[in-house]
Amino acid sequence: KAKTFLNDLQPVDIAEIIEELELKEQQWILSLLDSETAALVLNELDPELGGELLGHLNEERAGEILEEMSFDDAADLLSELSDQEQNKYLELLESEDQQDVRELMTYREDTAGGLMTTEYVAVREDITAARAIEVLREIAPDAETVYYVYVINLKNQLVGVISLRELIIANPDSLIRDIMRRKVVSVPVDMDQEEVARIVTKYNFLAVPVIDHDNSLLGIITVDDVIDVIHEEAAEDLYRLAGAAGEEEEEEEEFFQRIFASLKARLPWLFITMLGGLVSGRVLSGFSEQIDAVVALAFFIPLLTGMGGNVGTQSSTVTVRGIATGQIKEDQIFTVVLRESLVGAAIGSILGLIVGVIASVWQQKPMLGIVVGLAMLGNMLTAATMGTLVPLIFRRIGIDPAVASAPFISTAIDITGLLIYSTLATLLIAYLL
Amino acid sequence: KAKTFLNDLQPVDIAEIIEELELKEQQWILSLLDSETAALVLNELDPELGGELLGHLNEERAGEILEEMSFDDAADLLSELSDQEQNKYLELLESEDQQDVRELMTYREDTAGGLMTTEYVAVREDITAARAIEVLREIAPDAETVYYVYVINLKNQLVGVISLRELIIANPDSLIRDIMRRKVVSVPVDMDQEEVARIVTKYNFLAVPVIDHDNSLLGIITVDDVIDVIHEEAAEDLYRLAGAAGEEEEEEEEFFQRIFASLKARLPWLFITMLGGLVSGRVLSGFSEQIDAVVALAFFIPLLTGMGGNVGTQSSTVTVRGIATGQIKEDQIFTVVLRESLVGAAIGSILGLIVGVIASVWQQKPMLGIVVGLAMLGNMLTAATMGTLVPLIFRRIGIDPAVASAPFISTAIDITGLLIYSTLATLLIAYLL
Ligand SMILES: [Mg+2]
Ligand SMILES: [Mg+2]
Ligand SMILES: [Mg+2]
Ligand SMILES: [Mg+2]
Ligand SMILES: [Mg+2]
Ligand SMILES: [Mg+2]
Ligand SMILES: [Mg+2]
Ligand SMILES: [Mg+2]
Ligand SMILES: [Mg+2]
Ligand SMILES: [Mg+2]
Ligand SMILES: [Mg+2]
Ligand SMILES: [Mg+2]
Ligand SMILES: [Mg+2]
Repeated sequence: KAKTFLNDLQPVDIAEIIEELELKEQQWILSLLDSETAALVLNELDPELGGELLGHLNEERAGEILEEMSFDDAADLLSELSDQEQNKYLELLESEDQQDVRELMTYREDTAGGLMTTEYVAVREDITAARAIEVLREIAPDAETVYYVYVINLKNQLVGVISLRELIIANPDSLIRDIMRRKVVSVPVDMDQEEVARIVTKYNFLAVPVIDHDNSLLGIITVDDVIDVIHEEAAEDLYRLAGAAGEEEEEEEEFFQRIFASLKARLPWLFITMLGGLVSGRVLSGFSEQIDAVVALAFFIPLLTGMGGNVGTQSSTVTVRGIATGQIKEDQIFTVVLRESLVGAAIGSILGLIVGVIASVWQQKPMLGIVVGLAMLGNMLTAATMGTLVPLIFRRIGIDPAVASAPFISTAIDITGLLIYSTLATLLIAYLL
Repeated sequence: KAKTFLNDLQPVDIAEIIEELELKEQQWILSLLDSETAALVLNELDPELGGELLGHLNEERAGEILEEMSFDDAADLLSELSDQEQNKYLELLESEDQQDVRELMTYREDTAGGLMTTEYVAVREDITAARAIEVLREIAPDAETVYYVYVINLKNQLVGVISLRELIIANPDSLIRDIMRRKVVSVPVDMDQEEVARIVTKYNFLAVPVIDHDNSLLGIITVDDVIDVIHEEAAEDLYRLAGAAGEEEEEEEEFFQRIFASLKARLPWLFITMLGGLVSGRVLSGFSEQIDAVVALAFFIPLLTGMGGNVGTQSSTVTVRGIATGQIKEDQIFTVVLRESLVGAAIGSILGLIVGVIASVWQQKPMLGIVVGLAMLGNMLTAATMGTLVPLIFRRIGIDPAVASAPFISTAIDITGLLIYSTLATLLIAYLL
């Protein structure tokens, strides 16, 4: 009965159920599945859990399941295991498959090589459309996608591509050579996964071929794996911007493990901003006579630093995103900075005026309003400019722009904002008393 | 020559070139393309520019190109035009297509209906695999994807699905009924696009069928359009978190238009945080005697508010992301809040100790160190707890959790942090003098 129930589910749904269960039950569920389904389920599980479950199977069964897995998924799963276990399982595979999987395990996981699989469909250009469909039919059960057929020459170089859709419409007797597309968009094996995702997004591909420096076809990357990359990169940027990079969402982590991971990810950033906060304190201590004389000057410190941090965060987020989407190109730096500075100046003028009026009415000191208003203007202008410039400079010198994060930017702006405020107050102190 | 050059390019590359040119040149390039390529190019252009170029064509040519466009893309493009123009162009289409496009234009653009197209392949369950492939071959040139064949009954209800891959492997004489999958994952026409993206991501689909309340098949959504949704939603969350929601990356905007859009998006948030900053000032004014007595108390204000804002932003970002990925489920609220509070307490203890020691050494006042250290602990604890609780509460009451943004959270935390600090200082003022 459990078997019929499971058969009606998609592999990923079975994987979700397994993740909620205890080891004994997990093993039981796995034992009810045929090896093909088990392979699909294993591939959807957290690789760590997948590796553990694999370890509890007898060798024969483990080999059957591994044999059914896509090579890219098998490679990712085995990478989670110790060298010794890796070898044990790899030897269960047929020698040709074993070699492919071993090869795939050598690429860095965030590159085209780390995403690709070798289970593509490739034909020579001198066969007919009908023959190509026959080849496809034979390979289909093992291929990762049958929707693109790649055309290679005798040196295994990629010379063309034809979609299954085009093959089906084509006259069965036409030669592949005459109906294939010769301009093939491909990616080099060492390309960063983010760039691969940009290409698949841009061209609306279901898969993209991966080549080496010699244009030899090494594998393909399918759109489902690209979607995972897009989610991963979006999360990475978000976390970097919040200064919580490295804090990843691991489902399998225990309560306290999660807390330590969190501290490890955040403390370095917070330590830097703490030092920045002490520098701000040092700036204020040089300004203590003025505060002592006019204590109301202190009341506007949180307003100025808070607003500066927010405007800076807005500008840096917009800039980081613009860089990530390719919207902000290298030759537009000047325009972008000018634009954001004007935005900062406009915000500073509007809010500076309002705050200035409020400050002078509240404290009954017109000059205090002028100091606070001008400080606001200077602060908003600096904040927007720094929030934009810093990620652009980071890109130029090869640091991920997303490191120009909220904590980093807002701390830097706290310091400059307080310098502006204390300078203005010092200059105009005579009128403030 | 230009023609051969263009023929070698992908439509999206031609679109990129067009976007860099002047109107006259844009029209010239478009005139060199056959209607099929022109349709693909138009669909990759910014819809506003696409609409403009369409308006400059003579009716016959415009009709030819529209006829070649996917219905979903035609509907999106026409939605950019005035009612009068919409009708003019719709009437150029064959009456059946016209009806489909009109229908598609009625759905909200951020729902399944707004993403779908009606150009799917559907067959009845009593035909053979061979016959299904024949049908496919006929429909292929107009279908949006041929890689899934949907099976419908006489009432147009979705009863099964079979992939082209399965069709190709199947015995040509088998009936569809016997080889199709009966459990079909589909989405209702009014489902939010974010949920659609989650489903396509989860199941690794190339397309997902869209149904009405009666299980009738209305259309399909293809993975390329889902990828665009994923990018869009990631940008939306990022902008919301930075308090710059609504500030979108429009390629076609002019310099000053962009500045006004930016001000419009950001000023409301900044206005709220400005009010928050004034509240912080009010808190400090109730604390002016203490500052007057011990001016060094003011030096640590930026440190405390800066750190509070950063920890709060980290916690809210992690929580917002956890909600978006479905990692944080409704029944885990307590665990998540407890965990983040412990993270905040740990951060506060470690950094509070460091800051406390620095403050007492620097100002030669041990009690000042104790006040600052304790304020740091209280502030980090509150910041992490609020940063986690607020997005969770927002979800519960139906507000997008991403609105618990950096500006909002950090301003709220500035106020509570200063309340903690001033209360501690007031209680211990006797030892501070
Ligand atoms: Mg891999
Ligand atoms: Mg696209
Ligand atoms: Mg894969
Ligand atoms: Mg995968
Ligand atoms: Mg990145
Ligand atoms: Mg990366
Ligand atoms: Mg702040
Ligand atoms: Mg639409
Ligand atoms: Mg997936
Ligand atoms: Mg589409
Ligand atoms: Mg599209
Ligand atoms: Mg959203
Ligand atoms: Mg949305």
